[in-house]
Amino acid sequence: MAAEPKKIIIDTDPGIDDAMAIFLALRSPEVQVIGLTTIYGNVYTTLATRNALHLLEVAGRTDIPVAEGSHVTLTKGTKLRVADFVHGADGLGNQNFPPPEGKPIEDSAAAFLVQQAKLDPGKVTVVALGPLTNIALAIQLDPEFAKNIGQIVILGGAFAVNGNVNPAAEANIFGDPDAADVVFTSGADILTVGINVTHQVVLTGSDREKLATSNGKFAQYLTKILDLYFSYHREAYNTDGVYLHDPTAFLAAVDPTLVTCMEGSVRVQTSGITRGLTILYNKQKRFGEITEWSNKPTVKVAVTVDAPRVVKLIMDRLVES
Amino acid sequence: MAAEPKKIIIDTDPGIDDAMAIFLALRSPEVQVIGLTTIYGNVYTTLATRNALHLLEVAGRTDIPVAEGSHVTLTKGTKLRVADFVHGADGLGNQNFPPPEGKPIEDSAAAFLVQQAKLDPGKVTVVALGPLTNIALAIQLDPEFAKNIGQIVILGGAFAVNGNVNPAAEANIFGDPDAADVVFTSGADILTVGINVTHQVVLTGSDREKLATSNGKFAQYLTKILDLYFSYHREAYNTDGVYLHDPTAFLAAVDPTLVTCMEGSVRVQTSGITRGLTILYNKQKRFGEITEWSNKPTVKVAVTVDAPRVVKLIMDRLVES
Repeated sequence: MAAEPKKIIIDTDPGIDDAMAIFLALRSPEVQVIGLTTIYGNVYTTLATRNALHLLEVAGRTDIPVAEGSHVTLTKGTKLRVADFVHGADGLGNQNFPPPEGKPIEDSAAAFLVQQAKLDPGKVTVVALGPLTNIALAIQLDPEFAKNIGQIVILGGAFAVNGNVNPAAEANIFGDPDAADVVFTSGADILTVGINVTHQVVLTGSDREKLATSNGKFAQYLTKILDLYFSYHREAYNTDGVYLHDPTAFLAAVDPTLVTCMEGSVRVQTSGITRGLTILYNKQKRFGEITEWSNKPTVKVAVTVDAPRVVKLIMDRLVES
Repeated sequence: MAAEPKKIIIDTDPGIDDAMAIFLALRSPEVQVIGLTTIYGNVYTTLATRNALHLLEVAGRTDIPVAEGSHVTLTKGTKLRVADFVHGADGLGNQNFPPPEGKPIEDSAAAFLVQQAKLDPGKVTVVALGPLTNIALAIQLDPEFAKNIGQIVILGGAFAVNGNVNPAAEANIFGDPDAADVVFTSGADILTVGINVTHQVVLTGSDREKLATSNGKFAQYLTKILDLYFSYHREAYNTDGVYLHDPTAFLAAVDPTLVTCMEGSVRVQTSGITRGLTILYNKQKRFGEITEWSNKPTVKVAVTVDAPRVVKLIMDRLVES
């Protein structure tokens, strides 16, 4: 007998690789997507909500609720950084898709997260693909949330490697460092997948050709929006391929054997030139003094990934018609 | 014909491994030690000066001048952190050595550095084994210093690994992060050897036995002071061995083939929970925006080390009688 599908909420800022992750989730029998929550990051939150609704309509899955998330960082005042130069002004490769017909639910993202975690304690996984504001708000809204939520799988951080916003910081953590620090120290069951891992998972130009020649609905859609994403990677990384950040984090939530992890406490620098930097304390040294990492909960940080298996899973599921 | 020995100034906070590095330097035919400058770190500066004079007297090398360095950090106001729990209250393993007879020269460390670099432009190497205050002061004192100095070899930083003061920061950089940032961005020829490298270079319990059974003056001296250093490593790292931080940095200055390096710009975080953290930008990603690393000079950061060769050099030279 197959195991019951895992209930998943995707917190997302679509976003080209968000679109891939959402489509992938809808094609993954291991999970049941019970909602999308939206956040700024690749685009502003209003557009993220619009794109989330649009993607569900493309997929014919308007049964899945979308809850709109925060428009501002946890501690307010921080200027939002939106990655339109990566994903396009519309977040989906500048394809001028028609506006969606649907609307988000009344509940905020944070309220929806709290409610769903409470409905089925220990059984709901959040896959967080953008800045962590909504998750931090849920933690602040309900002291039981960190305990009620099954697992939080984060696409975020740059562990022992350079960041992608600047040499110190990865974009999702940089988007709201205060929120990220709240989440990492919340005591929830957390797995974070940083760019030290996702930069090993590449969709090549020839993979993209395969998508282009497939009849699959998602493959056809993605072929169009991937253009801009390839251009960005060519410019920034001098490569004919794109990093599969969000789909990799999603798959790590589905099948933890795709990655190996280190365990330790993670703190986030919230100011200065390394604002948004993530530091994992691996507990190998016993410090004589109390540090900012002392007595903080342990989280899992992905350090290796079975990249060929991840790419194959993504391709197999997205070329389906 | 042998090459002319390289002129070396050792900026030091003795310190057990500083003592090893100084003795090693005095036994290294490739270099001529033209002075010691002192700094707080393992001990306060006054005691560092006393210990530097003492070590030269033990070695019978009172011809080498000692210039006393700064008693405070570059931007003042920062509480000094002195590692007496690593090196003993006297900095030399609590052995109660008699006070030295000699005195430091009149010039400050920074003035001495500036003067020596100017006397022989491009030919003087500074091996900096403590916080970088004196070097930063020399840079501020003389706009030509960064150009005049041959090379600055630094024992400092924790690149892509946890620090040794806390999970973010290595002790020498943590001791004066502002000074370190001035030095790394000064444009001088810089090689930094961090604990990511020196933690691979271990003097084992059996190496220490070899020192103990040697008749060598330095070996006998070091055997005594190493006790406390071994105890600290047992407690902090659960290991019967000690890291050869300072001797390794010294040898990298003598023979650059002992290490391999990455090149890029290094910045130091000067505030917050990751104060003292060093981040190397490896220039693999082209950022669309100006970052705090943009247009900063390139330095060399050691990433691998030929540990067996380093340990052998240290042992061979220190067991000599």
